[in-house]
Amino acid sequence: MGINGFSTLSETTGKVITCKAAVARGPGQPLVMEEIRVDTPQKMEVRIKILFTSICHTDLSAWQGENEAQQVYPRILGHEAVGVVESVGEGVVDMKEGDHVVPIFNGECGDCAYCKSQKTNLCDKFRVNPFKSVMLNDGKCRFSTKEGEPIFHFLNTSTFSEYTVLDSACVVKIDSKAPLKNMTLLSCGVSTGLGAAWNTANVQAGSTVAVFGLGAVGLAVVEGARARGASKIIGVDLNDNKQVKGQAMGITHFLNPKDFGIPVHEVCLSTITYQSTCILSLFLWSLSHGNQDHELRKIKEMTQGGVDYSFECAGNLDVLRDAFLSTHDEDACTMARESKMITSGWGLTVVLGVHPTPRMLPLHPMELFDGRRIVASVFGDFKGKTQLPHFVRECMQGGVKLEEFISHELPFSKINEAFQLLIDGKSLRCLLHL
Amino acid sequence: MGINGFSTLSETTGKVITCKAAVARGPGQPLVMEEIRVDTPQKMEVRIKILFTSICHTDLSAWQGENEAQQVYPRILGHEAVGVVESVGEGVVDMKEGDHVVPIFNGECGDCAYCKSQKTNLCDKFRVNPFKSVMLNDGKCRFSTKEGEPIFHFLNTSTFSEYTVLDSACVVKIDSKAPLKNMTLLSCGVSTGLGAAWNTANVQAGSTVAVFGLGAVGLAVVEGARARGASKIIGVDLNDNKQVKGQAMGITHFLNPKDFGIPVHEVCLSTITYQSTCILSLFLWSLSHGNQDHELRKIKEMTQGGVDYSFECAGNLDVLRDAFLSTHDEDACTMARESKMITSGWGLTVVLGVHPTPRMLPLHPMELFDGRRIVASVFGDFKGKTQLPHFVRECMQGGVKLEEFISHELPFSKINEAFQLLIDGKSLRCLLHL
Ligand SMILES: NC(=O)c1ccc[n+]([C@@H]2O[C@H](COP(=O)([O-])OP(=O)(O)OC[C@H]3O[C@@H](n4cnc5c(N)ncnc54)[C@H](O)[C@@H]3O)[C@@H](O)[C@H]2O)c1
Ligand SMILES: NC(=O)c1ccc[n+]([C@@H]2O[C@H](COP(=O)([O-])OP(=O)(O)OC[C@H]3O[C@@H](n4cnc5c(N)ncnc54)[C@H](O)[C@@H]3O)[C@@H](O)[C@H]2O)c1
Ligand SMILES: [Zn+2]
Ligand SMILES: [Zn+2]
Ligand SMILES: [Zn+2]
Ligand SMILES: [Zn+2]
Repeated sequence: MGINGFSTLSETTGKVITCKAAVARGPGQPLVMEEIRVDTPQKMEVRIKILFTSICHTDLSAWQGENEAQQVYPRILGHEAVGVVESVGEGVVDMKEGDHVVPIFNGECGDCAYCKSQKTNLCDKFRVNPFKSVMLNDGKCRFSTKEGEPIFHFLNTSTFSEYTVLDSACVVKIDSKAPLKNMTLLSCGVSTGLGAAWNTANVQAGSTVAVFGLGAVGLAVVEGARARGASKIIGVDLNDNKQVKGQAMGITHFLNPKDFGIPVHEVCLSTITYQSTCILSLFLWSLSHGNQDHELRKIKEMTQGGVDYSFECAGNLDVLRDAFLSTHDEDACTMARESKMITSGWGLTVVLGVHPTPRMLPLHPMELFDGRRIVASVFGDFKGKTQLPHFVRECMQGGVKLEEFISHELPFSKINEAFQLLIDGKSLRCLLHL
Repeated sequence: MGINGFSTLSETTGKVITCKAAVARGPGQPLVMEEIRVDTPQKMEVRIKILFTSICHTDLSAWQGENEAQQVYPRILGHEAVGVVESVGEGVVDMKEGDHVVPIFNGECGDCAYCKSQKTNLCDKFRVNPFKSVMLNDGKCRFSTKEGEPIFHFLNTSTFSEYTVLDSACVVKIDSKAPLKNMTLLSCGVSTGLGAAWNTANVQAGSTVAVFGLGAVGLAVVEGARARGASKIIGVDLNDNKQVKGQAMGITHFLNPKDFGIPVHEVCLSTITYQSTCILSLFLWSLSHGNQDHELRKIKEMTQGGVDYSFECAGNLDVLRDAFLSTHDEDACTMARESKMITSGWGLTVVLGVHPTPRMLPLHPMELFDGRRIVASVFGDFKGKTQLPHFVRECMQGGVKLEEFISHELPFSKINEAFQLLIDGKSLRCLLHL
């Protein structure tokens, strides 16, 4: 018997493995549980046995095929998981058979100019890239059907399979005593949200925060803001069921935009910039976008003019605009209405949602001048290989409520059911057991 | 005789002053040199005698009436100047008759939440605001025609007048030994550009910089980047005459977009994001905007993939997009074309230009995810009252080549000629003597 009872590990080394995978064969079509072949890892690659995997909204978007560029089939989706190293390719020295590992969709080669820079966590070679569907070494797939047809990779990871091959830059060895189920969440959702609060925004004690979209990513932001001592954490979601979970995680207030009925022209003044031509266009813009901004007034009331930090975790451009306008901008409505003064702000908006839309940013250039800032964050600005092992240890000490994110558990074979739970807004993360 | 020979100073205290001012009476109409009345300063206000004033592009835009909201007439424009205090209103303790002062369009009350925050230089009460045309104390004008018709204020300052009244939050006392002519430039253009390099971007030694638009603001950025030890400073301007001046100030390379003739589809790949729908829209966008992006390829070649910092100092949205795309994004074209990899960046774009346009930001939300950042900067992020006196002393020690910015000098009466020099791209700053 090998480590943790994975007796077969060493027996498969150097051989093609035949195993089960949930294969995507077309946009929106149920995943098909198929027997597939998984090649041996090449130079600097690692083959891992997946123990648990879960579904992130980014998998959902890819599965729904909202983005034609990602429509290469057959393909194995999935990027949130935990596993154990089955074998390593030539040159891999930081991992060995039996190690517990977490796949990361946003890799870290450690060698490129980007990896060496403190300014970014986007590796030149292995950064998140939905276009990429083959391995970098040889431009080929490590997966194939029994008939020899190649099956494409996804987000550097492809975890909806009993075995998968990744570049070692996309695999992080974690403490062998870390609770495996929970570690799945660090693979994407929780690291992304928590990191956005800690690394990207650097939320300070006493500050005010608004989180738009209370899925796993949004709730991880909440968790991060709570841990930092934010004084107010306002959760915004169209789904009322998110309120209870949100409160368990640390939101101090919940707003459902559907509950607000103020006519839009009453609130749209918060969108004013200091160019009249802009006012006009923004005004029209607001009207054409209906009742989007209602909860904004409430947030501004609750926070004396706006929050210090807002996070867009819904993947929706109108929500992005709301998030931007929800940051500090004292009494914008009143003052602008009296045409006395244009006010300034200092808020920071962090964009986490993925936006597969042809629309451009719904912000006017002069809106940047009121002191509000907007940045996007990939994987919570964590450098995966360098920083995740430490984050794992922090989680083991109990600082982060990881269990709360696992709302459901199902066997791997029921993966289509797990997708449906996420679509219906019923699950945060459904843990699939392999 | 009073201080510096201004013998009339104390004699006018408490009385309405009759003096000359260049009054704007309609959009684009030549300014009219009129006799006007200037009221006494009220509580916390200061009346100053203007000694020198110059014309910033923001005055030009206001004069051209590009922005209807600013079309209140008659009005006294102008915000770049140096003067001497004639008298102070009740409660003003930090200045007195005879003090040398610089007006600031972006005031600092020192008391509001914004002034107390380190995160912003935008005062809640006196931040830059082209809408504002009256004094805050009583909502009235301190200027009037001989017939008693009110004349409106502009940008908290209105310096195209022999005397003007400002809130003391918008007046900075400077060292009495500072050379007065040069100090005019600290009132807006040079502080804005230099501050953008030092405070907003915090340019580091060895870094690479691109400056789009080589007016006084852009050249002040150049000066700031040079002082910080930037290794490459690329100046971009449509006007070839800016090359010589630019080189004197520190640009290491000059690019005129007109000199580039690469078909746009060859370069537009740099605009790719990782959503295919976006590629399409951005591609179309690029095409519809003609030959904008040509110099981008050159900048990327010169800097191994893009500059660390870019500055938009032209007030043009297409230039803004170019500036954004000019920052570091290693070999985007080649790699994207091979569809292998989407690359990341770490550049920072600072927007300084004012954009009186109904168009929204020409950036796709996913473009924020490549690590590039964009911020706007007002008055170079200087807190005027707090920080300008120190900056004045730094300039007195010779670190900044202020003289270089004064390209012309004319008597105040020739102000319309000075406007024309700026319109024609012939002047940087034409100093008007009052
Ligand atoms: N930046 C990154 O590195 C990164 C990483 C993981 C996920 N993501 C993205 O983050 C987003 C969230 O992911 P998730 O897994 O938490 O998704 P999720 O589906 O679990 O949660 C999304 C939440 O947003 C809510 N929502 C939808 N539309 C809304 C609206 N108009 N107003 C308010 N709330 C609204 C939904 O009700 C849901 O609760 C997705 O776009 C995903 O692709 C980004
Ligand atoms: N943010 C602030 O606090 C602040 C302060 C002062 C001025 N401004 C703004 O900064 C901008 C510059 O002001 P300035 O006084 O230096 O103006 P300026 O007229 O002296 O200089 C503008 C320069 O941009 C160049 N230019 C115009 N279109 C261009 C294009 N498409 N590509 C490349 N170059 C182009 C012109 O040739 C000129 O050299 C203006 O928009 C002004 O309103 C902002
Ligand atoms: Zn994810
Ligand atoms: Zn790297
Ligand atoms: Zn100016
Ligand atoms: Zn203030």
